[in-house]
Amino acid sequence: MTTTRPRIDADRLYASLEALGRVGEYRDERTGLLGVNRLALTDADAAGRRHVVGLMRDLGLEVTVDRIGNVYGRRAGREDDLAPVMMGSHIDSVPTAGRFDGCLGVLGGLEVLRALDDHGLRPRRPMVVAFFTDEEGCRFGTDMLGSAVAVGRIGLEQAYALTDRQGRTVRDELARIGFLGEAEHRLAPPHAYLETHIEQGPCLRAAGLDLGVVTGVQAISWHEVTIQGKSAHAGTTPMELRCDAGVAAARINLKLRDLIASGRFGQMRATMGAIAPHPGLVNIVPGRVTCTVDLRNPDDALMRAAEREVVAFYDEVARLERVEVTWRQTARTEHVPFDPGLQARLAAAATAAGLRHAPIISGAGHDAQELATLCPTAMVFVPGEHDGISHNPRELSTREQCRDGVGVMLEVALALAEE
Amino acid sequence: MTTTRPRIDADRLYASLEALGRVGEYRDERTGLLGVNRLALTDADAAGRRHVVGLMRDLGLEVTVDRIGNVYGRRAGREDDLAPVMMGSHIDSVPTAGRFDGCLGVLGGLEVLRALDDHGLRPRRPMVVAFFTDEEGCRFGTDMLGSAVAVGRIGLEQAYALTDRQGRTVRDELARIGFLGEAEHRLAPPHAYLETHIEQGPCLRAAGLDLGVVTGVQAISWHEVTIQGKSAHAGTTPMELRCDAGVAAARINLKLRDLIASGRFGQMRATMGAIAPHPGLVNIVPGRVTCTVDLRNPDDALMRAAEREVVAFYDEVARLERVEVTWRQTARTEHVPFDPGLQARLAAAATAAGLRHAPIISGAGHDAQELATLCPTAMVFVPGEHDGISHNPRELSTREQCRDGVGVMLEVALALAEE
Repeated sequence: MTTTRPRIDADRLYASLEALGRVGEYRDERTGLLGVNRLALTDADAAGRRHVVGLMRDLGLEVTVDRIGNVYGRRAGREDDLAPVMMGSHIDSVPTAGRFDGCLGVLGGLEVLRALDDHGLRPRRPMVVAFFTDEEGCRFGTDMLGSAVAVGRIGLEQAYALTDRQGRTVRDELARIGFLGEAEHRLAPPHAYLETHIEQGPCLRAAGLDLGVVTGVQAISWHEVTIQGKSAHAGTTPMELRCDAGVAAARINLKLRDLIASGRFGQMRATMGAIAPHPGLVNIVPGRVTCTVDLRNPDDALMRAAEREVVAFYDEVARLERVEVTWRQTARTEHVPFDPGLQARLAAAATAAGLRHAPIISGAGHDAQELATLCPTAMVFVPGEHDGISHNPRELSTREQCRDGVGVMLEVALALAEE
Repeated sequence: MTTTRPRIDADRLYASLEALGRVGEYRDERTGLLGVNRLALTDADAAGRRHVVGLMRDLGLEVTVDRIGNVYGRRAGREDDLAPVMMGSHIDSVPTAGRFDGCLGVLGGLEVLRALDDHGLRPRRPMVVAFFTDEEGCRFGTDMLGSAVAVGRIGLEQAYALTDRQGRTVRDELARIGFLGEAEHRLAPPHAYLETHIEQGPCLRAAGLDLGVVTGVQAISWHEVTIQGKSAHAGTTPMELRCDAGVAAARINLKLRDLIASGRFGQMRATMGAIAPHPGLVNIVPGRVTCTVDLRNPDDALMRAAEREVVAFYDEVARLERVEVTWRQTARTEHVPFDPGLQARLAAAATAAGLRHAPIISGAGHDAQELATLCPTAMVFVPGEHDGISHNPRELSTREQCRDGVGVMLEVALALAEE
């Protein structure tokens, strides 16, 4: 037992990210870069899971797999009946991922425990590192699946019944890869939950910051929009007789820009990411377009106001372009604020470490937003290089960025575990 | 020999359209309607060709197949060395066609000759009914192929070398289906060329007209546009840091509308028919979009002015949205005016028959625009039901509409053949 403070070993942490990154590795044909594909409940995900379970066993953790395949590695506390301090995230990935998204929270949690081991520290409370099943939602269509089941937002049977495009169920695939556990899936409330994650955006890096203390996850609203016009010959159909579904979609896209430019919706972000015209030929006026609208806002009331204006505009564009516009809500979550006390403690730890930091809202969803319904929860964001690109082999946080983020988590986790 | 005027037998003409429509017939899965698929130089096209050659032989015509597969059925004149009066069009089709596009011009020409036979008429000049190879261009990428070779706009070897998606050449496919003829492919100038065609647009029907006298084929300009922006996370990327290729495409689409609304470009039509974002996911800002622009104008000078403004806008939108816009010209033809004298004679014949008619510009390309470079040429349009839909199993002209259009062609063809 040393007298210095426990500290993160940057090389050890980064080497563990590199090692996990080799599980499910592939080479991107266009760029030649090495990426990661550990789509949930595939063989590659199973290999990643076994790799991390091995790391947990090496650390002497008690490993539990619950009925939805969430994995918990538990380090005993001096008063082992107390609610644990939990750290975690996910290790499943989108099909074209880098090495950091999710993995940093899980391997960072394990590095925190290694740092305690280095110093022979045994805090009062038990400490748990978790990785949750299918955070990405790419395969079975529902993101944050494992953590949502753990906190009771999604029922176990409902989760089991979800299918991929080949009709394989979550339950069958969990059983097939050997991660259909027997432990109770509803999680007993931890004392607190902390998650370190790559920002997946450009803000911290652009502002020259070392880390961000996440204030919460912004509200999300997704629409799938179908515009039915009339297919027509581009050469023979007079402009005034057209019902051009493509023009209607263009008007909706630019309306999103107008709403943001109006300044009336605060920190709103809005995106038309998909647009598919039918038949999609150079000389045919598009008769039908399906497109998507993605709205984000850290303020629930402003989100609702923006949604109302967007939907009203669907009706307006239908009249204007003589098309029929129908839409359905494909995702909707409210703003999830993180615990103010934990945010203050993370900020103080960052200041004490001499790091440049600022509060930041999360634009993406994370397991932490599910845990926030169960216990005091907070997140640390580390900056991403290359404009913060993520879900891409170019995703990158440096050794120092990872060390700094996990180091701040270590300080607060240790303090929480002594409470 | 009777003393009445020769006249079109509406039932006989319509029955011949129905009979040819059964060659290459298919049932549309979604609507249950019967459509036609006689893609150029397929087995179905070959069957259609043999069917029409049979009709020509039944009429005692001398049948010639040239080196590009154009088929000419010739009826001798009293002074058989004179240049013939030619009527025609095409019998190949898009993969989802109706029974009228092209076929009306060919079978209408044969019906004109039948009407002469009925009356034992032998005009001074020979008369020829032609069907030209691959007018649609769907399979080998170049429309009006056979007629373009016949008038010398496209070289024979260049046409032969064109390939479909499976790499099969025009020459090999002509040989395979038995229509690689030996006759000279460069056509000796006919005395005149007439073509009756379905309008493929809504104008005649909307105006309550019985037929249209076509003034010419409008100029066409196609651009394939590639917009390179930056893929980014829709939740985490601030609006002011985005390079959204989808928004840039939307601005181009609406710019086309603005140019038309300005009234500065006459009868311009403009369409963005194709738009494909990459990666095309709900929560990703599109990093790249390919899209198409289709411009039409009956006035060459106005077309050039519109093209200049569209291309200037590509640069403007590139600056505005911080994207790169590149484009290439995928098709360009000038306005082709038809012969004013022939137009006047068609109009006079229509008036004499008590038909409501008007001049109309052709929005689509036709074999007649190639023949117009060789001899006095004109076209008759007959109205289309269902808003003039074409390239679709719902394409429809009525028995009376077909009779009236071909009847006017008969009057003018007969007069021309006596000159």
